Amino acid sequence: MAGTDATRRDVGEDGFAVVLVDPQLGDNIGAAARAMLNCGLTDLRLVRPRDGWPNERARAFASGADRVIDGTRVFERTEDAVRGLRTVYASTARDRFMVKPVVTPRQAALDMRAAATAGHATGVLFGGERAGLTNDDVALADTILTVSLNPAFSSLNLGQAVLVVAYEWFQAASDASPRAISDPDYTPADKADLYRLFDHLEGALEDARFFKTEEQKPSMIRSLRTMLGRGGFTQQEVRTLHGVITALSGRRADGRERATNRPVPDSP
Amino acid sequence: MAGTDATRRDVGEDGFAVVLVDPQLGDNIGAAARAMLNCGLTDLRLVRPRDGWPNERARAFASGADRVIDGTRVFERTEDAVRGLRTVYASTARDRFMVKPVVTPRQAALDMRAAATAGHATGVLFGGERAGLTNDDVALADTILTVSLNPAFSSLNLGQAVLVVAYEWFQAASDASPRAISDPDYTPADKADLYRLFDHLEGALEDARFFKTEEQKPSMIRSLRTMLGRGGFTQQEVRTLHGVITALSGRRADGRERATNRPVPDSP
Repeated sequence: MAGTDATRRDVGEDGFAVVLVDPQLGDNIGAAARAMLNCGLTDLRLVRPRDGWPNERARAFASGADRVIDGTRVFERTEDAVRGLRTVYASTARDRFMVKPVVTPRQAALDMRAAATAGHATGVLFGGERAGLTNDDVALADTILTVSLNPAFSSLNLGQAVLVVAYEWFQAASDASPRAISDPDYTPADKADLYRLFDHLEGALEDARFFKTEEQKPSMIRSLRTMLGRGGFTQQEVRTLHGVITALSGRRADGRERATNRPVPDSP
Repeated sequence: MAGTDATRRDVGEDGFAVVLVDPQLGDNIGAAARAMLNCGLTDLRLVRPRDGWPNERARAFASGADRVIDGTRVFERTEDAVRGLRTVYASTARDRFMVKPVVTPRQAALDMRAAATAGHATGVLFGGERAGLTNDDVALADTILTVSLNPAFSSLNLGQAVLVVAYEWFQAASDASPRAISDPDYTPADKADLYRLFDHLEGALEDARFFKTEEQKPSMIRSLRTMLGRGGFTQQEVRTLHGVITALSGRRADGRERATNRPVPDSP
């Protein structure tokens, strides 16, 4: 794959990160690591593993995938774990009633291969054993990934879910789909930059007392992130939108007031 | 599917049997049962399970796939376990130096679906955790089934191997695609409403002197419309964004100033 050296160091040679959010059992983390290496993947990221890290059961269940276990990184927040990724999928079996695209692992694998070829790192979020991903985590993702299974019994074990996605990634090696955007240079912004844009907007809305009550604020923020996230903004577009928010609100991304919020009508 | 009553009783409604030969851990038998029911399969056959049958760990690891566990049959010899099947595959990662066709799970799934439609039951043999299938077992099969995986780390856990084969079986059904948006009620906004949103934003930006020069204004507006148009906003999302623009700029969609642009800090 292409990409700068910095990108390579950050996401590994394969350009595809597996992110487990609130995983509970080391057994399942190990099974996920084994399934990843079975399919040539090595970039494993954990958010708040219940039993801490390192975890000896995870190493045992990885059955020799030490390379994945040794390179695993741990984060406090999902937002930090997806840093450096350009497209993020949320693996979930349930309908979330969010206006986000839904793809199968097979479709996702073709898109992820195409992204990797273009030098863009991608990742998939998997929720913990008990409850899966929260709606806030799903809202961070661009696309929902759902495995088609027996509707009467569709809940996959965590290690099995990782296997299906990694397996499709490996099988897609030979045939990457054409790109879906009519600009050969199209590159979505780094998620960290996108989240700074969300912070800027939400800070400006807070100042403007947009949120009527504290209760409705989280769901309103989730809706805004979902609708703006769908656009797949480029770095340049993110900069433009910072300019839009600053122009409209007088509040800059760093939280400071702009010198003049609103032009004085009779200025020269 | 078609088939005589006798065949149906023998192999279950699905026409596809999973045969585990010399399985050791109940955990893995249970994981296999769960993966089978995830993919709509129920016909599980065991040859010489090391820890006997029934096995409480198998039931626990099946996570509710009781229907599979309760229907599981146990045999002394592989020959007896494949009785009633018309085509048998042997799942193995190693070369066996036997003159037999080798297929991937994806190819096998298509063939097994076609056989099921014609009323012919099929089955896949999986070896135990320690050594896999013996050459004698492989010799009983018509075709070798091998999963393409990382050549440096290709050994799948038993439950994972069953999942890959069952998953491909399920995906080979024609209607295994989820809906394209994770909200069954998703409807994009009327374009006329979307354009009113653009007018609102551009009017507010004009007021805020966002456009530095008249020359760059058309291309800037085009960029804004392109990036916001990509999101496919719903009617409700368009309303929310009108609220965002009004809150930030103090300018309503009809061009009038809001009563108070910025909240007065000491108001009640």
